[in-house]
Amino acid sequence: MIGPPYRPLDAQVIPRFAGIRTFMRSPYVSELAGVDAAVFGIPFDTATSFRTGARFGPEAIRSASVLLRPYHPVLAVNVVESLSVVDYGDSPVSPGAIERTYSQVEEAMAPLVDAGVFPLALGGDHSITLAELRALVRRHGPICLLQLDSHADTWDEYFGQKYFHGSTFKRAVEEGLLDAGSSVQAGIRGSNYGAGDIRDAEELGFTVVPSEELRQLGGEGYAGLVTEKVGERPVFLSFDIDFLDPAFAPGTGTPEVAGFSTAEALAFLRALQGINLVGADVVEVSPAYDGPGQQTALAAANVAFELLALKALGSVR
Amino acid sequence: MIGPPYRPLDAQVIPRFAGIRTFMRSPYVSELAGVDAAVFGIPFDTATSFRTGARFGPEAIRSASVLLRPYHPVLAVNVVESLSVVDYGDSPVSPGAIERTYSQVEEAMAPLVDAGVFPLALGGDHSITLAELRALVRRHGPICLLQLDSHADTWDEYFGQKYFHGSTFKRAVEEGLLDAGSSVQAGIRGSNYGAGDIRDAEELGFTVVPSEELRQLGGEGYAGLVTEKVGERPVFLSFDIDFLDPAFAPGTGTPEVAGFSTAEALAFLRALQGINLVGADVVEVSPAYDGPGQQTALAAANVAFELLALKALGSVR
Amino acid sequence: MIGPPYRPLDAQVIPRFAGIRTFMRSPYVSELAGVDAAVFGIPFDTATSFRTGARFGPEAIRSASVLLRPYHPVLAVNVVESLSVVDYGDSPVSPGAIERTYSQVEEAMAPLVDAGVFPLALGGDHSITLAELRALVRRHGPICLLQLDSHADTWDEYFGQKYFHGSTFKRAVEEGLLDAGSSVQAGIRGSNYGAGDIRDAEELGFTVVPSEELRQLGGEGYAGLVTEKVGERPVFLSFDIDFLDPAFAPGTGTPEVAGFSTAEALAFLRALQGINLVGADVVEVSPAYDGPGQQTALAAANVAFELLALKALGSVR
Amino acid sequence: MIGPPYRPLDAQVIPRFAGIRTFMRSPYVSELAGVDAAVFGIPFDTATSFRTGARFGPEAIRSASVLLRPYHPVLAVNVVESLSVVDYGDSPVSPGAIERTYSQVEEAMAPLVDAGVFPLALGGDHSITLAELRALVRRHGPICLLQLDSHADTWDEYFGQKYFHGSTFKRAVEEGLLDAGSSVQAGIRGSNYGAGDIRDAEELGFTVVPSEELRQLGGEGYAGLVTEKVGERPVFLSFDIDFLDPAFAPGTGTPEVAGFSTAEALAFLRALQGINLVGADVVEVSPAYDGPGQQTALAAANVAFELLALKALGSVR
Amino acid sequence: MIGPPYRPLDAQVIPRFAGIRTFMRSPYVSELAGVDAAVFGIPFDTATSFRTGARFGPEAIRSASVLLRPYHPVLAVNVVESLSVVDYGDSPVSPGAIERTYSQVEEAMAPLVDAGVFPLALGGDHSITLAELRALVRRHGPICLLQLDSHADTWDEYFGQKYFHGSTFKRAVEEGLLDAGSSVQAGIRGSNYGAGDIRDAEELGFTVVPSEELRQLGGEGYAGLVTEKVGERPVFLSFDIDFLDPAFAPGTGTPEVAGFSTAEALAFLRALQGINLVGADVVEVSPAYDGPGQQTALAAANVAFELLALKALGSVR
Amino acid sequence: MIGPPYRPLDAQVIPRFAGIRTFMRSPYVSELAGVDAAVFGIPFDTATSFRTGARFGPEAIRSASVLLRPYHPVLAVNVVESLSVVDYGDSPVSPGAIERTYSQVEEAMAPLVDAGVFPLALGGDHSITLAELRALVRRHGPICLLQLDSHADTWDEYFGQKYFHGSTFKRAVEEGLLDAGSSVQAGIRGSNYGAGDIRDAEELGFTVVPSEELRQLGGEGYAGLVTEKVGERPVFLSFDIDFLDPAFAPGTGTPEVAGFSTAEALAFLRALQGINLVGADVVEVSPAYDGPGQQTALAAANVAFELLALKALGSVR
Repeated sequence: MIGPPYRPLDAQVIPRFAGIRTFMRSPYVSELAGVDAAVFGIPFDTATSFRTGARFGPEAIRSASVLLRPYHPVLAVNVVESLSVVDYGDSPVSPGAIERTYSQVEEAMAPLVDAGVFPLALGGDHSITLAELRALVRRHGPICLLQLDSHADTWDEYFGQKYFHGSTFKRAVEEGLLDAGSSVQAGIRGSNYGAGDIRDAEELGFTVVPSEELRQLGGEGYAGLVTEKVGERPVFLSFDIDFLDPAFAPGTGTPEVAGFSTAEALAFLRALQGINLVGADVVEVSPAYDGPGQQTALAAANVAFELLALKALGSVR
Repeated sequence: MIGPPYRPLDAQVIPRFAGIRTFMRSPYVSELAGVDAAVFGIPFDTATSFRTGARFGPEAIRSASVLLRPYHPVLAVNVVESLSVVDYGDSPVSPGAIERTYSQVEEAMAPLVDAGVFPLALGGDHSITLAELRALVRRHGPICLLQLDSHADTWDEYFGQKYFHGSTFKRAVEEGLLDAGSSVQAGIRGSNYGAGDIRDAEELGFTVVPSEELRQLGGEGYAGLVTEKVGERPVFLSFDIDFLDPAFAPGTGTPEVAGFSTAEALAFLRALQGINLVGADVVEVSPAYDGPGQQTALAAANVAFELLALKALGSVR
Repeated sequence: MIGPPYRPLDAQVIPRFAGIRTFMRSPYVSELAGVDAAVFGIPFDTATSFRTGARFGPEAIRSASVLLRPYHPVLAVNVVESLSVVDYGDSPVSPGAIERTYSQVEEAMAPLVDAGVFPLALGGDHSITLAELRALVRRHGPICLLQLDSHADTWDEYFGQKYFHGSTFKRAVEEGLLDAGSSVQAGIRGSNYGAGDIRDAEELGFTVVPSEELRQLGGEGYAGLVTEKVGERPVFLSFDIDFLDPAFAPGTGTPEVAGFSTAEALAFLRALQGINLVGADVVEVSPAYDGPGQQTALAAANVAFELLALKALGSVR
Repeated sequence: MIGPPYRPLDAQVIPRFAGIRTFMRSPYVSELAGVDAAVFGIPFDTATSFRTGARFGPEAIRSASVLLRPYHPVLAVNVVESLSVVDYGDSPVSPGAIERTYSQVEEAMAPLVDAGVFPLALGGDHSITLAELRALVRRHGPICLLQLDSHADTWDEYFGQKYFHGSTFKRAVEEGLLDAGSSVQAGIRGSNYGAGDIRDAEELGFTVVPSEELRQLGGEGYAGLVTEKVGERPVFLSFDIDFLDPAFAPGTGTPEVAGFSTAEALAFLRALQGINLVGADVVEVSPAYDGPGQQTALAAANVAFELLALKALGSVR
Repeated sequence: MIGPPYRPLDAQVIPRFAGIRTFMRSPYVSELAGVDAAVFGIPFDTATSFRTGARFGPEAIRSASVLLRPYHPVLAVNVVESLSVVDYGDSPVSPGAIERTYSQVEEAMAPLVDAGVFPLALGGDHSITLAELRALVRRHGPICLLQLDSHADTWDEYFGQKYFHGSTFKRAVEEGLLDAGSSVQAGIRGSNYGAGDIRDAEELGFTVVPSEELRQLGGEGYAGLVTEKVGERPVFLSFDIDFLDPAFAPGTGTPEVAGFSTAEALAFLRALQGINLVGADVVEVSPAYDGPGQQTALAAANVAFELLALKALGSVR
Repeated sequence: MIGPPYRPLDAQVIPRFAGIRTFMRSPYVSELAGVDAAVFGIPFDTATSFRTGARFGPEAIRSASVLLRPYHPVLAVNVVESLSVVDYGDSPVSPGAIERTYSQVEEAMAPLVDAGVFPLALGGDHSITLAELRALVRRHGPICLLQLDSHADTWDEYFGQKYFHGSTFKRAVEEGLLDAGSSVQAGIRGSNYGAGDIRDAEELGFTVVPSEELRQLGGEGYAGLVTEKVGERPVFLSFDIDFLDPAFAPGTGTPEVAGFSTAEALAFLRALQGINLVGADVVEVSPAYDGPGQQTALAAANVAFELLALKALGSVR
């Protein structure tokens, strides 16, 4: 076996605390030949409604990701043997200008989409997912969304602006990017502006699973629901780090208590084996609010690793 | 519908990170006409046996409370439409002088009690509850206590002082403020000075539910026990933030490991629908020990919100 | 003597750690009769080029300001006896939308300017000064700027945007808001994009005093330079907290080492007795990067106090 | 009843925040007459593969341990009445020199082992357990290991070195210190270098219980498995603080998400009543990464207390 | 040469990060034979007007003091060769009860004073100095005070209480403990309640040197002023850590900006060679507000070392 | 003008908070053609005597370095136009094994030295300088050392080890790597083990300038002394971040109070124009002890920039 052309630094040769901080210490490349999966950052936080700072999310997740080793013992897959993973750097962004940034992200992702490389974005606030979906839809058509999040992000506007991190999925449906009827938003919780908040998401077509129901479902129940909805269709998985409880992920912009542990979160993700994942992101890591032990960034890095492992399961290198 | 005369700032008009920090950005008023519920601080920490700093608890809880939205999706109630909620500011206190402070708190609360306004206090250390109970008993007579806490706070004295944050409920029983036989202390855990610590609480008449039992009971079991005890009688709910595990609430004075998550805590609170709540407090938030993400203060703000929601359920504005 | 109609809470009656956090615990009012000076927040940080978070600056400065007592022993003036000071709350802002925010700030300040109230703004990033100047110029005509800052903020644009926190004073000159020839930018330091950075500021008409020169000048030399430039003309003093060294003000967005101590900063400010101050701000406090002791916010609160003291010296209540 | 010759300071006489920080404020002694259990530190972190800093672990655990009271209400045992517990100070160590340190630890422990005193070590990184086992084996012969940890620590070498914190238990088996077939490693989780990581541990003879299985087992299931394995044989319990989730123990060197809560951890420990405990340690507390509330150190102190309580149950003073 | 009977652990044998945290790792003893200087803690903070937490000051200063080596190169004295220094532990205190605590401190210090041991106290808030002075005056009669502090602490009362950390030196003069006319308060700064604040101190007889004047004086000028005042008379030096600027000492209860650097502070202390020092303290270290690098505690430990060095200069062991 | 082949990312195109963290966002290359200066990390901290953690120094300095702009206004040089600067990644290291690491560093530096590339190392603890000097001496012969540091690092051994961060310069002299008679150690301060500490350094041939003298000398005096010593000879500048005061650089392993500000430090460095710099390092940044504003890392990044600017002044691209 020859294995993938790109591999991370070997921790037996260069200790994990050494080296330039790329995701998992993967090669930092801009050429896509031989690449299966590209991890890249979208350091944008202009569209944040409460605590800013997610522009430093990609740096923090990369920093924590050096703790990741290549083999996933529960899914029994060696991620970096199965996938040729690179760090594609950060998308250009324009702080202060969301629509300009959307264009930049779409442009940055186009080569990935064209080359059939699996794109895994590190946010940035949740507004960025809209640009990611635009880029992917050009190849895949409307996509099924699996969103793990404490907020549905289907509000309509924010201080006169149609694009912000709380309106992403309403816009996405309006733009025809999502197959909302096959999409599931799970983990929703916290106080709302009104009873309409959840109803609006449902009226857009989403299946909304509040946190209390999701906890009842467990990994298997959730997977069953998802499988029924998405089948073989292309799926985008968007993981907002505030899906986790603030004890597990304090470093985020709009935390909600009574959330999930990382053990629960990983169980939900691992149950999704077999879905047709065409893109994913991990968003809303705001490092200035993280603890000294950087547990939020570490959780995000592990979520990214789980997503790569799900992708790796279906690969046949 | 006209709705309540006092409402918080509208987050669609003034972003949640803007404005003077009152509880939920409610109006800061000292007149009580038209007021249903008054949130106020008691910034006192002289009676603390380990880490001081709870005098800054009200500031921190108010700061975190701006993240609260008005509608409670699980209890299906709009708190600020159902209740006219104000921030009543802070009670005067005398740092270093507990009995003088008790008088000040009783005096500050008297207008609230006279006007039939629901008082929700933000501590401050747990000593303050004694003054709150004294104020309320003048109207309601002996009250049922529902205490969620890792300590029973029924010790007798502390370095020659009868009043400190660990003797509050012994004093309260002695003063005839509580209907101890109808009162429940739940979540008790951690090492003790002796086997007598719990026994003393029971001998005062309290039903004591250690954390291990409470976890077995779950929300429904706890609610059943409570309902049986308190029936229609007036209830004071005192939530010591150290009921939560230090992972969820590190910012407190005498943390005890093996505690409850916020998800568990909210489930216990939500199960109490229908109780006759006449007063409540959230105490022992010590912000200097909180994480950069302020999860303790956020948890306390959410507990306060749950308490208002319980009150709102019974209101008919 | 009767004294001003508005005064802060008396620390002999309510301890300084108690009460709603307004600036110096001054009354929070929206009516301007009897008001001499209004402190207000502009919680905006969309125009920030590096670390965001200054939207929480006003909260942090208010929190630290409760440590301020009324009498200034060096200038020998009782600030709150000489001036009727209120907290005017926060200006509405639109996160993500700088020009909309400018309009909101101008609108919010109009009543202050109309009433001849001295406006002291708490930022927020440095972009907000443009809106403040627009509001003041309607009454005073072009104003002399005294800027204490590590950056001249006279760049031209940022990622396609003309308005950001680094172009404020170029825009201000272009809009005719400033009498640049009578304006002094002092404390400038740090690496630049090129030799043109300083030259551009000078070509706009500003007198630029780099940090090394300013340190040589000292308080008296600086005051001499300023007096010569501004004479009796109306002055706006803009204090960017990054004028201070990161040891004294770590909590800011674009820190530059080799800056000034608070002792030096206060000496510069105190030397300005007698200037005709018509407005002022303290900007770029980003609390998430402050130390646990909140020294940045405390420094900013003290700068604000010095500015009020300078104003108070000229008042005749 | 006379009780043990050594007891901690009485918190009714000297408040818990006062006094020199020894473990539980026990007497700091170097003579062993009348001593049942000795808590001591091994402040060594040279053998750490990621975040260093565990050399400050003993200081932090002692600091947090002052919150411990003597009586264990769940196990119904007064630890300090049942055992004469002292703080034996810190073993000499040689930072930078692991084998020299091993000799120092063995030498420091020899009097404890000779005197039949129960040794409870506070780490330090996990490399130190090898020296502890060497010291104990001289008295007890090969010992059963109960390891609660997220890593098996059975790698072979690290950058040319046979001794580091990830090879401890491979070395221990090779040196004949352990009865591997009667030993259980539980809580193992996180990404691995390959499928061989776990297999290697099993091939050494260990029973390896991954975290997912352990969570299924629960306290009773785990105790059943342990009892079956160890019977009456002498047991060493090694608790790596990264057994806990980073939310509960952020202050550690190689954190792994999806770990255990302190409530779960204490349940596992309490289920072990009746085992023949001859030594124990709590390792890998790295205080610089702990939160301001020091929850990691507090968790470690409580784990140490549980271990003493297990020992106390079998004592007959 | 035989040298003193008590010496700290040798850092060539036990690394400085190892061992029980006593001051400079000196022996922890309660017998006074052979002792020249005793460092002890007074962990009391009930008398604090703003941020509490100084009860943990002694722990933090001891923790940082392990970085101190024995030889003072500027004063050319080996502190631990010249003086037999021990850690005397903490005085008993009664949190919440200042007058009871005063009695406890006086009682704890009596053996030191009787034995002619030099007492160096680690606070605790500044209220404790009153008890120290009471203890010393029994032997020395009225003492000259050298106070380095940002506040004169000569207010009269606080919320009805005559004893708090801001009235210490007014009480001390009233009780006849001080030779106020030979006493110097230096470094005073910050906003005041009124012009009377300084005048009150002067009317009590103190020479008050505001920070601006002290900075002008420099070390030599200050020493000249002091020498003129105190001559050969017995001196108590009280160092409030808020003498330092918050950049150098953020971890304190009532910080004042525009303070002194540690370099300046040490220069003032070193200039005092030859004074007849009979007692000293370092107070108001509040560790919860210190930075992660613990610079406040380190500064306090160094101040304590300077005080011991001043004492050592006059000793003839 | 064509300019250098390698340049950092343009902050007008990619905002400074975006992109992989290399030094100044310079290209990360391993080929040396066209390279004038190579910045690289040596993430090693096994040889640290107090706080470990400097292995994360390179990561932190790179993170802070993105704030650096290319033009140095005081020295009037555009660093990246004058020098082709790259990030050369991290040298391999062997945690736990200092001599093995020395070999790895020498090997990693050999291509740089052979190619005549200016090497600027980011530490790591101060032990690493020995390996750097070994590598450079092969080309330059014995080198003049300019050390800015609070410790001379000329102790002899540490717990039986000849190589640790406190013996570096004694070893360097013994190995003939330094022209000690032309070398200057400046900024030395803090308590010592004995009077011999400084004398030992002097006996090795070094000119030792204690901090008090250095402060008197000022930039010009220091430069005069240096010029006299080093003349045209090749110079290695080693900047230990603990040269700075803990207020300016809390994030280090063995902090000493009464140190230098960054303004002072930069003045010393800038005065060295014209020296023949052949290598340099910035060491002892330990990020876990830095403040939330990362001022230590920012100071180190600026020191590195000054060193590059000194080098750039002599270049003629």
